[in-house]
Amino acid sequence: MDSTQIRAMADDIRSGNRRALARAITLVESTRQDHREQASALLEMITPDTGNSIRLGITGVPGVGKSSFIEVFGNHVIDQGSRVAVLAIDPSSSISGGSILGDKTRMENLTRRREAFIRPSPAGTTLGGVARRTRETLLLCEAAGYDLIIVETVGVGQSETMVSEMTDMFLLLLLPGGGDELQGMKRGITELADLLLVNKADGDAKKIAQNTVLDYRSATHYLPRKHKSWAPRVEACSTAEDRGILEVWEIVQEFAAALKDSGEWEQRRARQALDWMWRETAESLLVDLKRHPAIAEALPQIQAAVQRGDKSPTVAALDIVKLYRQYNSTADHSNGSTDL
Amino acid sequence: MDSTQIRAMADDIRSGNRRALARAITLVESTRQDHREQASALLEMITPDTGNSIRLGITGVPGVGKSSFIEVFGNHVIDQGSRVAVLAIDPSSSISGGSILGDKTRMENLTRRREAFIRPSPAGTTLGGVARRTRETLLLCEAAGYDLIIVETVGVGQSETMVSEMTDMFLLLLLPGGGDELQGMKRGITELADLLLVNKADGDAKKIAQNTVLDYRSATHYLPRKHKSWAPRVEACSTAEDRGILEVWEIVQEFAAALKDSGEWEQRRARQALDWMWRETAESLLVDLKRHPAIAEALPQIQAAVQRGDKSPTVAALDIVKLYRQYNSTADHSNGSTDL
Repeated sequence: MDSTQIRAMADDIRSGNRRALARAITLVESTRQDHREQASALLEMITPDTGNSIRLGITGVPGVGKSSFIEVFGNHVIDQGSRVAVLAIDPSSSISGGSILGDKTRMENLTRRREAFIRPSPAGTTLGGVARRTRETLLLCEAAGYDLIIVETVGVGQSETMVSEMTDMFLLLLLPGGGDELQGMKRGITELADLLLVNKADGDAKKIAQNTVLDYRSATHYLPRKHKSWAPRVEACSTAEDRGILEVWEIVQEFAAALKDSGEWEQRRARQALDWMWRETAESLLVDLKRHPAIAEALPQIQAAVQRGDKSPTVAALDIVKLYRQYNSTADHSNGSTDL
Repeated sequence: MDSTQIRAMADDIRSGNRRALARAITLVESTRQDHREQASALLEMITPDTGNSIRLGITGVPGVGKSSFIEVFGNHVIDQGSRVAVLAIDPSSSISGGSILGDKTRMENLTRRREAFIRPSPAGTTLGGVARRTRETLLLCEAAGYDLIIVETVGVGQSETMVSEMTDMFLLLLLPGGGDELQGMKRGITELADLLLVNKADGDAKKIAQNTVLDYRSATHYLPRKHKSWAPRVEACSTAEDRGILEVWEIVQEFAAALKDSGEWEQRRARQALDWMWRETAESLLVDLKRHPAIAEALPQIQAAVQRGDKSPTVAALDIVKLYRQYNSTADHSNGSTDL
């Protein structure tokens, strides 16, 4: 694509053309160097049109009913006059070949709506790579005019922290019961949550769900406060009976209003953007460094020595940086065809 | 120093010369480029003599009695035939001019013992810089034959996570009472702890302390498990009455034995070393990058644009990396006299 085509793509995205948006996301997901440069040019063009959505992270253990919840919730939000995009982060998708949102039968009703845009998790070898693409996709969706961007993740390793870092608000879905086994606590992610939602509060489980709500209300007292202007809320809902779901959208809007009022919204966004910039910079430098042939050759030995304790990590790092600077000073490789 | 002098310093450290150790630590704390290179050469020489200590992180809110505890505990450990080094990480020391361990009257009895070595927190503008120096100091102390290295930190921001990442075991000191205000929970660091110790369990507070122990025992159930071969322990102690302190040393040795048996000890160390190497590498590259004049000049504007949301973080990162590579490809700056 030349710059005229990229400009046309940016215009198409802004006007709400879904096909252009999908093509742009494929572009930001590519690791090819020329694609990276085109993606960068595109992002530069659409940046003025970004930042106006509510970015909502959603997580919960498998079986908690994330997709059903998002389907019912998303439909309510659209009925209230907003447009909804659903993105996913699944660190395991590079191994399993894509699991969350990969199944076409999921969120069938939401998929059909004109005001919804659903995108499965990008494949990627590193969590950092997956995060970068999701962040960029999020910006593209904002430029396309989506008012609520949901970033869904499965409860694997560090993906929750990552989603929390790229969103404004974090919703943790829970199952009724659990008692000693408060799943969110066990996995150490409850403290990321701004809203804890006990799902499947229907039929026989209704009473259990209410107790779970009370358990979590007292448990969240012990957790560090994430925002000055917002204390975590714990509520119950039933996706099957469609109870308490519309209320979630009200809570989300309350949250946004409270944080915008206190200035924490803007502060958080600014901090997230700067952190992201430096992480991107460090990541790009490390990627660049690792493709230096001399380093690629030396690395296995260096790493093994460090792991065995035969080489100090500082000394190893110094060696690596020296090799890198020698490489850069002897030739200009900036037009290499390998991935950035 | 030339390489003969560095070699002599390494020999002196190994033979237990305290003055040589102190000078070596001053060397690793220096940011001067020539000092960094000497420190690197020194670390390379002593690496075979490192890794044999137990690395113990200790934290707790101000007023919990950290220094008194370390003094009594350290004396017990020495009485049992081991040598003890105490290092400190205090992220605020660059602002306050050094607070923890800066006061010479602290740990008076421990300071006087031949088998103890106490070093205040290095000053530093970044937490990362402070961490690097503390890690290197830790290695020097190991080469000097200390069997237990205590890394003390105040409860400020991310310093606990950092200490946890460079130690084998993490001890959280707590005050009796607290109830709803379980300090460790509130600050979200309880889940880092392998041993929670309710201090000041003496006089009227004895009973309260026992209840606090029970509270924390049930609270730690909700936390994610850090090690397969070790469940967090919660105990009470009294520094004033010297009760339960010798037992702490027994628990520490139990912990080390359990993790060595399961293989988790070695795995953790190997992972820590590799993480440290990559963090060091990334950090060095960023430091190197920031002193590129064109970047230093452009940075304030770039950062402001990113914070305002006018520039995408990815695009900003790409711009920075491009500037950096242009700089490196036009000249060899590896002999610059500025800090690495």
